[in-house]
Amino acid sequence: RVNAGKLAAHPYFLNTIFVLILINGVLVGLETYPYIAENYGSWIYIVDQILLWIFTIEILIRLIGSRTIGSFFRDPWNVFDFVIVASGHLFVGGHYVTVLRVLRVLRVLRAVSIIPSLRRMVNALLLTIPSMGTIMLLLGIFFYIYAVIGTMLFQSVAPEYFGTLHDSFLTLFQVITLESWASGVMRPILAEVPSSWWYFVTFIIIGAFVIINLFVGVVVNSVEE
Amino acid sequence: RVNAGKLAAHPYFLNTIFVLILINGVLVGLETYPYIAENYGSWIYIVDQILLWIFTIEILIRLIGSRTIGSFFRDPWNVFDFVIVASGHLFVGGHYVTVLRVLRVLRVLRAVSIIPSLRRMVNALLLTIPSMGTIMLLLGIFFYIYAVIGTMLFQSVAPEYFGTLHDSFLTLFQVITLESWASGVMRPILAEVPSSWWYFVTFIIIGAFVIINLFVGVVVNSVEE
Amino acid sequence: RVNAGKLAAHPYFLNTIFVLILINGVLVGLETYPYIAENYGSWIYIVDQILLWIFTIEILIRLIGSRTIGSFFRDPWNVFDFVIVASGHLFVGGHYVTVLRVLRVLRVLRAVSIIPSLRRMVNALLLTIPSMGTIMLLLGIFFYIYAVIGTMLFQSVAPEYFGTLHDSFLTLFQVITLESWASGVMRPILAEVPSSWWYFVTFIIIGAFVIINLFVGVVVNSVEE
Amino acid sequence: RVNAGKLAAHPYFLNTIFVLILINGVLVGLETYPYIAENYGSWIYIVDQILLWIFTIEILIRLIGSRTIGSFFRDPWNVFDFVIVASGHLFVGGHYVTVLRVLRVLRVLRAVSIIPSLRRMVNALLLTIPSMGTIMLLLGIFFYIYAVIGTMLFQSVAPEYFGTLHDSFLTLFQVITLESWASGVMRPILAEVPSSWWYFVTFIIIGAFVIINLFVGVVVNSVEE
Ligand code: NA
Ligand code: NA
Repeated sequence: RVNAGKLAAHPYFLNTIFVLILINGVLVGLETYPYIAENYGSWIYIVDQILLWIFTIEILIRLIGSRTIGSFFRDPWNVFDFVIVASGHLFVGGHYVTVLRVLRVLRVLRAVSIIPSLRRMVNALLLTIPSMGTIMLLLGIFFYIYAVIGTMLFQSVAPEYFGTLHDSFLTLFQVITLESWASGVMRPILAEVPSSWWYFVTFIIIGAFVIINLFVGVVVNSVEE
Repeated sequence: RVNAGKLAAHPYFLNTIFVLILINGVLVGLETYPYIAENYGSWIYIVDQILLWIFTIEILIRLIGSRTIGSFFRDPWNVFDFVIVASGHLFVGGHYVTVLRVLRVLRVLRAVSIIPSLRRMVNALLLTIPSMGTIMLLLGIFFYIYAVIGTMLFQSVAPEYFGTLHDSFLTLFQVITLESWASGVMRPILAEVPSSWWYFVTFIIIGAFVIINLFVGVVVNSVEE
Repeated sequence: RVNAGKLAAHPYFLNTIFVLILINGVLVGLETYPYIAENYGSWIYIVDQILLWIFTIEILIRLIGSRTIGSFFRDPWNVFDFVIVASGHLFVGGHYVTVLRVLRVLRVLRAVSIIPSLRRMVNALLLTIPSMGTIMLLLGIFFYIYAVIGTMLFQSVAPEYFGTLHDSFLTLFQVITLESWASGVMRPILAEVPSSWWYFVTFIIIGAFVIINLFVGVVVNSVEE
Repeated sequence: RVNAGKLAAHPYFLNTIFVLILINGVLVGLETYPYIAENYGSWIYIVDQILLWIFTIEILIRLIGSRTIGSFFRDPWNVFDFVIVASGHLFVGGHYVTVLRVLRVLRVLRAVSIIPSLRRMVNALLLTIPSMGTIMLLLGIFFYIYAVIGTMLFQSVAPEYFGTLHDSFLTLFQVITLESWASGVMRPILAEVPSSWWYFVTFIIIGAFVIINLFVGVVVNSVEE
C-alpha cells in the first residue's frame, strides 16, 4: 500500500499520466478528420484501448495507495477520474458509439485533475457557485414566469420561439444573451401583437439588472476574500 | 388574534403554503401544453379555484394575526400578496381570461414573499434602485433627445425603426443592447443618408459610457456596504 | 446687478425655467407626429419663439447677475446655455431648418444644467474622461492599424465593409461591439480569403482586452475615490 | 558613444522621430485610397524609403548610444523597434508586397515605443497576461473538448460551422461572443438534432462563468495593486 501511495504521488508517475492524457486528447482530435478516421481508425482504436487500460491501472494504483477506499472516494476529483475511466469499460458495444466517443473526449478533462494549479482554480470556481444559489433560484422563478406568460401569449403567433414551454425557455435564454432578440424574435411578433414590446423590454431590463447584481455579488465576494 | 399570529408564523403553515404555490406554478405551466389544457382543463380549473380560496384564507389568517390592519399593510410584501390574491377574485368572467391567466402565473412570485432568503435578496436588489435615480433620469433625457432627433431625421427613410417617437424609443433600446444595430438598423439607413453613422456611433459610445458608470456606481456602492 | 443675481438664484426662477424646458421638450416631441405638425405647427412655432425669447431673457438676467462677464463664461455650463440659446437666433431662415430643429431638441439638455444633481453627475462623468486619455490614444492607434490593414486586404473582397479607410473604421466599430461580426462581416470574407479569420479574432481579443482594462481602470479609479 | 547616447535621449530627437512616425502613418493611410495610390504612389514610395532609412539611422544611433549591444536588446521595446525596421530592409521584392505593406503599417506601432505613457500602459497591460495563464489554459481545455464534441456531433449537419476541428474552434469563438449563436448557428442545427440545445446552452453558461471569473481576477488583481 505504501509503495503504491509513493508511486501515485511521484512526479514521474504524474508527468507520464499527463503526457498520456495529452496523447489521448490529440488522438480524439485527429479522429474528427474523416481522412484520418478512415485510414488510421483501427490504429487509433488500439492506442485508445491501451490508454484506457493504463488509466485503469493508474486509478487502481491510486486506489491501493490511499489509506482506505472511503478516503479515496471522499475526494470528488478521484470520483470524477474513476467514473470517467470506469464508464469507458461499461459502455462497450455498437449501441453506445457516440457515448463512448464523448467519454473519450471527456478524458481530456482529467488534465484538470492532474495539474494542481488547474485543480485549485476549478475548485475555486466551483466554490463561488453556492454563493450564487439564492440569486439563481430568483432567476429561475423569473424565467419560469416569463416562459409561461410568453407561451400563453405568443404560442400561436410564433410557434418556432414560443410553441411550448421548453421552446420558450430556450428563446428566453437567447433573449437574455441579447442575440437577435429584436430583429429575430420581437419584431416579427410585434407586427402581429403591437403591445408585445413590453414583454421583451421588461424581461431584458429586469434580467440584466438581476444578472448584473449576480455578477457584482461574485466580484464583491472575491474582493472580500 | 394571537393564535392566528402564531399559526401564520408556524413553519408547517409556511411550508404548506410554499408547496401549494409550487403546485399552482406546475399547474400553470402544464396548462400551456394544448393537450393537457384540453383534456384536464376542467380539473386544473377546480384545483386552481381551491388554491385561490386556500390562499385567500391564508391572507385572512395573516391579516387577523397581525396587530392592526395598518401594520399588516405597512409591509409591501403583504400588500403584494393581498393584491395578487384579491385580484384573482375581482377579474372573473370571459372578458378577463388573459388577465386572469397572467395573474395565476404571477402567484408563483409569491414564492419570493414566502422564502425569507429570496425576500431579503429582492429587498436588497430593490434598495439599489434609488441610488440609480439620477443616472436613470440622465439616461432618460439622453434617450429622449436621440429619439426625437432620430424620428426627425429617419422618419421617412426607415419608418419601421423611426416612424414615430415610440418606434424610435424601441429602436434605441435595441441599439443600446447592440442587437443588429449595424446590420439591421444602421446600414440600410446609411445607404440613403451617408452621414447617419455619427447618430449611431455617438449614441452607442455615450450610452455605453453612461451605462458603464451606472454599473460602476452599483459596484462601488455594494463594495462600500 | 445684485437684484438680477438674487433673481437668477431664486428657486421660483429656476423652477419656472425647468417647467419651460419641459414644455419645450414636450413640444419638440409632439412635433415629430405628422398629424400634430400639420394641424398645430403654427401654434407650436409661436410657443417655441416665445420660449426662445424667455430663455434669452433668462440668460441675460443670469449674465447681468454675475459679477463680471468673464466670471459668467468661466462656468462651462453657462457657455453651454448661452450657445444653445444664442444659436437659436443665429440659424434663422429656410436653409437651416434641420439645424434649428436639432437645436430646439438640444435645449432639452439644458435640464441638465438647471437640475443640480444632474449637473454634478455629468461633471463627475466628464471628469473620468481625462483618466482614459492614454488608453483612448492606444485604442486609436490599434483601430488605425487594423483599419489600414483591413482596407489593404479586403478592399476588393468586401467593398461594403472595407471599401475605404472610413468604411473600415465604421466596420471595426461594429466588430468591437460584436454586432454581426461573424455572420455579417467575417464569414462572407472567409469564403474568399480563408486566412482572414486571424484578422477578426485577434482584433476582438486584443480589443476586448484593452477595453476591459479601460473599464477596470475606471472602476479602480472610482473605488479609490 | 556618449554623444550618441545623449542624442538618442534628447527631446528634439524623440519628437522628430514621433513626427516622422506620424507622417509614415498618414502616408500608409492615404495609400489605401486608390486615387492617391495611383497618382502619388511613386512619391509615397520615395518618402517611405527615406523614412525607412531615417528610422534605420535612428535605431543605429540608439544602438551605438547604449552601453553594450546586449543591454540594447535586453529591452523588448528596442527588439521590437529593431525587428520592425530591419524587416523593412529584408522583405524587398515583388514576392513580399503585402508583407511589406503590413510592415509599414506596423511601424505606426512604434509610436507606442516612443511615447513613454503609452509604453508604460502597454507594459502594464502585458503584465496582466501571466496572471491569466492558468485560466487561459482552463479555457483552452474547455474549448478543445467542446470543439471535438461539436465536430463529432454536427460535422455532417452543419459543415459550414462544424465541418472540421478548426471550423468548430472558430464557431465556438463566435458563440462565446454571443454573435448569432442562436439565429445563425443553433436554430438550423436544432431543426435536425432536437437535443443539440444542451451543447450550446452549457457552452455559453460555463464559458461565461469562466470568462467572468477571468475578468473578476483581473479586476481584483488591479484593485490589490
Ligand atoms: Na446579432
Ligand atoms: Na450581440
